[in-house]
Amino acid sequence: MSPNGAPNGINGTTKGRILLVGSGPGHPSLLTLAAHHALTQLATIVLSDKLVPREILALIPPSTKLHIANKFPGNADGAQNELVDLAISYARRGETVVRLKQGDPFVYGRGGEELIVFRAAGFHPLIIPGISSALAGPLLADIPITQRGVAESVSICTGVGRGGREVELPAYERKRTTVLLMGVARLPTLVERMLSPTLGYPTYTPIAIIERASSPDQRVLLSTLEHVVQAVQDAGESRVPGMIVLGWVCCSMHGERGELGVLDGAGEEEREKEDLERVGRWLEGRQWRVEEGLSERWKWVDQAVQERN
Amino acid sequence: MSPNGAPNGINGTTKGRILLVGSGPGHPSLLTLAAHHALTQLATIVLSDKLVPREILALIPPSTKLHIANKFPGNADGAQNELVDLAISYARRGETVVRLKQGDPFVYGRGGEELIVFRAAGFHPLIIPGISSALAGPLLADIPITQRGVAESVSICTGVGRGGREVELPAYERKRTTVLLMGVARLPTLVERMLSPTLGYPTYTPIAIIERASSPDQRVLLSTLEHVVQAVQDAGESRVPGMIVLGWVCCSMHGERGELGVLDGAGEEEREKEDLERVGRWLEGRQWRVEEGLSERWKWVDQAVQERN
Repeated sequence: MSPNGAPNGINGTTKGRILLVGSGPGHPSLLTLAAHHALTQLATIVLSDKLVPREILALIPPSTKLHIANKFPGNADGAQNELVDLAISYARRGETVVRLKQGDPFVYGRGGEELIVFRAAGFHPLIIPGISSALAGPLLADIPITQRGVAESVSICTGVGRGGREVELPAYERKRTTVLLMGVARLPTLVERMLSPTLGYPTYTPIAIIERASSPDQRVLLSTLEHVVQAVQDAGESRVPGMIVLGWVCCSMHGERGELGVLDGAGEEEREKEDLERVGRWLEGRQWRVEEGLSERWKWVDQAVQERN
Repeated sequence: MSPNGAPNGINGTTKGRILLVGSGPGHPSLLTLAAHHALTQLATIVLSDKLVPREILALIPPSTKLHIANKFPGNADGAQNELVDLAISYARRGETVVRLKQGDPFVYGRGGEELIVFRAAGFHPLIIPGISSALAGPLLADIPITQRGVAESVSICTGVGRGGREVELPAYERKRTTVLLMGVARLPTLVERMLSPTLGYPTYTPIAIIERASSPDQRVLLSTLEHVVQAVQDAGESRVPGMIVLGWVCCSMHGERGELGVLDGAGEEEREKEDLERVGRWLEGRQWRVEEGLSERWKWVDQAVQERN
């Protein structure tokens, strides 16, 4: 009768239910209590994206069924449909299905489309937000995306459009942060477009490439638009997933006092000089810097997950 | 010796440490495992923003000291400085200080400024991201901010600038979602600016006002730019905190099949007609609709927090 797990009037059995759950960026301690409870206490079957790391999947009790998406290049739609169909058929058999999605279910990743299919089948999922790498990636690289005095707003975009098409990128605005998800593989093209007169980014715009945010092998490349392609080549093999952060917040936490006065500077001409000096201090006179690994301080809380299992 | 909680070389005692922790939007189940562990296992003193609800503060063991910011209009800076000074003085005495911040520490909220002061005092905090209402507010109102085929990017802004100044708002772009934090009190001014030729939003642009996101008394007002001021007046007293979501994603989950074809429509003239029909279906022929309360399905996971204490 009810699509929400209430007793089914026909034969007294309980109808199944579906939970659409965000797993966060990958670090198990960044699961929400709600997501952890769903995975460890409620689920009878977990249907997971391929990108969810094994440390999170390891939390699922051995008695719970687990199915991981068979997503490979060119088969995104197929894998997506397969998981949605499976979720509905398990829920129809009375199971509690956790559909586990990387990051936040409603930040890219097609969560809305899944919701519509589930509803059409008579199931109204509980949707549990997750820590999105769009915000946590910069944080874990010590970048406050809306630092007062440096950025007034943030734009979150994808670097790859529907069907692989080019996406519209926001034009340069000194007081805006831009976060680009899924664009590192196309970095040279993206950089070229940003430096074009249409978008108007200065060559010395600070940029951070954040790879495998929240993982032990997190890597942060700090550079400028001019040198970032070379920086990535020099760093060796890219680590996926990667994201790009553009704007003056990238350097705002550098040094003893930080670089907090970006929006308080003088006129146009003076500004360029100030900005170049700022970049020089931040990169310590080099063309790029690399920060390897997640902060050691994560050890303070990592035992949280162990203790709970 | 070490600012990270390692033994202090001078007298063998352990130096204190600071954790800068995001509490999420307010629902206790939306704490991360890391934040929950910090509050319940690590903290010897918690310094909390005033907006963190008592359900979250109730998780803190009675033996842990708790200090809540004395923030009142006109005293934001004072309260901020007081908490930062307290954190440093407790940490200097060897305590483990959790500085608990609403939402995510690096999405507005001055987390970056706190980080710089803590570092200057010799403490390098662990910064734990939190679920930001900027993303979770729309999710909890069934709005996927980057729904494929409807929005390609999202801009997060504040409705109130530094020192109460007007902020720059993004101009209308049909394929962009705009999230405005902290702007509901100034809604009439914001709407007037959006409808101006400079920003160019059509009068029928979908808008959602989401109040007290993730709380049992969450309220979502759905309307158009033309009618939203009247809708808010009609709804009675505003519930704080509130946020604004603008764009076609607001209606994308409505109806059996949703409204997913926003970006696939025909030419300019046809488009306006389609958009008006879309808005008509979404608002069910009215000028606004109100959705009261958080989904009942949150009961599935709310016991998680209870069980843990």
